[in-house]
Amino acid sequence: MPPRILTMTTDFGGDGPYVAAMKGVVLARVPDARIVDVSHRIGPQNILEAAFVLACVVEAFPPGTVHLGVVDPGVGTQRRLVAARIAEQWFVLPDNGFLTYVARDRSVDEVYELDNPAIARTPVSNTFHGRDLLAPAAAHLLLGQPASALGPPRHGIVRLPAAEPRKEDSGVVGEVIFRDGFGNLITNVPESMLTEAPGDCWTVEIGDHRIDGLTRTYGLHAPGTLVSLVGSSGWLEVSLVNGDASRFLNCGPGTTVWFRRKG
Amino acid sequence: MPPRILTMTTDFGGDGPYVAAMKGVVLARVPDARIVDVSHRIGPQNILEAAFVLACVVEAFPPGTVHLGVVDPGVGTQRRLVAARIAEQWFVLPDNGFLTYVARDRSVDEVYELDNPAIARTPVSNTFHGRDLLAPAAAHLLLGQPASALGPPRHGIVRLPAAEPRKEDSGVVGEVIFRDGFGNLITNVPESMLTEAPGDCWTVEIGDHRIDGLTRTYGLHAPGTLVSLVGSSGWLEVSLVNGDASRFLNCGPGTTVWFRRKG
Amino acid sequence: MPPRILTMTTDFGGDGPYVAAMKGVVLARVPDARIVDVSHRIGPQNILEAAFVLACVVEAFPPGTVHLGVVDPGVGTQRRLVAARIAEQWFVLPDNGFLTYVARDRSVDEVYELDNPAIARTPVSNTFHGRDLLAPAAAHLLLGQPASALGPPRHGIVRLPAAEPRKEDSGVVGEVIFRDGFGNLITNVPESMLTEAPGDCWTVEIGDHRIDGLTRTYGLHAPGTLVSLVGSSGWLEVSLVNGDASRFLNCGPGTTVWFRRKG
Repeated sequence: MPPRILTMTTDFGGDGPYVAAMKGVVLARVPDARIVDVSHRIGPQNILEAAFVLACVVEAFPPGTVHLGVVDPGVGTQRRLVAARIAEQWFVLPDNGFLTYVARDRSVDEVYELDNPAIARTPVSNTFHGRDLLAPAAAHLLLGQPASALGPPRHGIVRLPAAEPRKEDSGVVGEVIFRDGFGNLITNVPESMLTEAPGDCWTVEIGDHRIDGLTRTYGLHAPGTLVSLVGSSGWLEVSLVNGDASRFLNCGPGTTVWFRRKG
Repeated sequence: MPPRILTMTTDFGGDGPYVAAMKGVVLARVPDARIVDVSHRIGPQNILEAAFVLACVVEAFPPGTVHLGVVDPGVGTQRRLVAARIAEQWFVLPDNGFLTYVARDRSVDEVYELDNPAIARTPVSNTFHGRDLLAPAAAHLLLGQPASALGPPRHGIVRLPAAEPRKEDSGVVGEVIFRDGFGNLITNVPESMLTEAPGDCWTVEIGDHRIDGLTRTYGLHAPGTLVSLVGSSGWLEVSLVNGDASRFLNCGPGTTVWFRRKG
Repeated sequence: MPPRILTMTTDFGGDGPYVAAMKGVVLARVPDARIVDVSHRIGPQNILEAAFVLACVVEAFPPGTVHLGVVDPGVGTQRRLVAARIAEQWFVLPDNGFLTYVARDRSVDEVYELDNPAIARTPVSNTFHGRDLLAPAAAHLLLGQPASALGPPRHGIVRLPAAEPRKEDSGVVGEVIFRDGFGNLITNVPESMLTEAPGDCWTVEIGDHRIDGLTRTYGLHAPGTLVSLVGSSGWLEVSLVNGDASRFLNCGPGTTVWFRRKG
């Protein structure tokens, strides 16, 4: 039997009972579930950040993994909750753009809208669909039960328009999407957009700073050097060796980054 | 065999080795335990907050769950450590008011004082009874061994006096008990105290602000609207739609909140 | 079969996808692994703090536990990654001083350098050896496979020189190594260095403050009292009863602490 792995990505913060309540609901139904926290410190209502962070972990998990996501500014209103199958993994979350990056280069193979009251926890609260609707649906899938029982099939998912970098004559312009725990600034520019020229043929511009060439890893440079490189999930990032680039540059998500081809 | 679920609620903060040491003690004795963190960011020595947060998760967990709590300003002195059975779940913690909210509307079916040295980890440190006394007792219960072996039975538990809202002629006066990760302000006023009149018959007063009527969910209002509603655990709360009510109102736990009946 | 327990100690912060990605790699290979987070909030690149925190949990875990550590300023350069056996537990981490405290009073029984590409995750990124090299090696050991397959045996490990307190005529001089979640200041002075005289024969000096004698536990003193005592892992610490010694004294790791014998 495959492992029953559940990941969780939410904006609940790290201080309260909400995450634990969802885990209780899952474990009551799936005693042998393995639960992995991706992040509970997504910026409140920041769907773009959540979408990006979730996409960064997908490759590391085996087929059959269920990813539960709750960043849900529309809770209690008419936005859809869905279960989507992508790359042999399931994603159970509000259909609000959360899958933008996961589905960027992958096909969405099935989507069901959650609307089966027999699978929900009752009574369903007005403010915590993560616990009462999403967690029970995730448990249902972890148990290997048919996704089609969750609700009617749907075609396509919502994608966030702001998420894509732009190709220009002189290079590529993207933006910082995520600030990691070290202060590294991860952009929405994938490695594949810069493969037309070797790393030392690029200049990176962020704020008033220019970085000459891409590097391979932090450790090749003196502490305090500002560098740009392909990070571990395949996105270009700007980093300060052994330091905090976000603080040094005084910038974060939303900041424009230019990758210009030299000469 | 029922799942062996352990939850943990402490004021240890998220930065150190204490939580992991307790988990090591439990897993060494109960290899198949499922451990769920409720919160390790309870305010230092803040028993009231811990009691409230713990109560918010009880409903989500199945019978047989063991809840381990360590907020223990009296460690090393004569306060009691206990194991209490409430709602077919076990609570292993200092008897210092930690069960005030869990036991508010539920009967306390058994209480044992922990004093069996054969169950403790030895040597018992003077400052870390969570690891040396509480974790071994929790493991004992997770294994399904008799609670009566933990120590002598006791009658009743300590309850915090400050925890109750007050009914007045013009309505109900309570206080903020907990600020969640979104900045929502959760009060100690349960839904049941306001059922005498419909939601739109109440005015909510907090600081200099008045909120007209209770609402059903955040998503019905424009971002930035201050609202009051019954939260997901059954307590009245004050929230700023897509924002941080605590920061907006510049207040937190301890703040008085009035629910006044109109007219 | 023994439990398959993995602990993780990193400086990744609590906000990103890196920890989850490592857990995914482990669970894909070891579905029944029990994963315990020690800390992901080690100060960035702070090997000394990581070494200390890891040492504080070793006693609580059973034989066979695998401890995975990632505080790795040299990622992508020529520093070694190793698996070391100490006290019947395995430690999989960069050989950069991370084992200084674990190995302080314990023998290092085996060390292997990780260099078997068949055990790595491919392709190996330049910046995330925790996911691509260390996690697969830890999974290999959790499965009970031979450590010698990981790479060639090595002799000895790197130790940090700054880690040791000094014995002087008038007493012992050490420094604060770790600030815990309460603000307690844990020093690098082990209990064994002060056993020559009873607790009330010592004066503790930190900054401009002098503490008269060692105490047994926090609860014996009034809130707000500055005390010094042997903490739960066997190291001398300075604490403010029911308060935050670090904030009160305005100091943290690196601060000198004197333990002087009276008269």
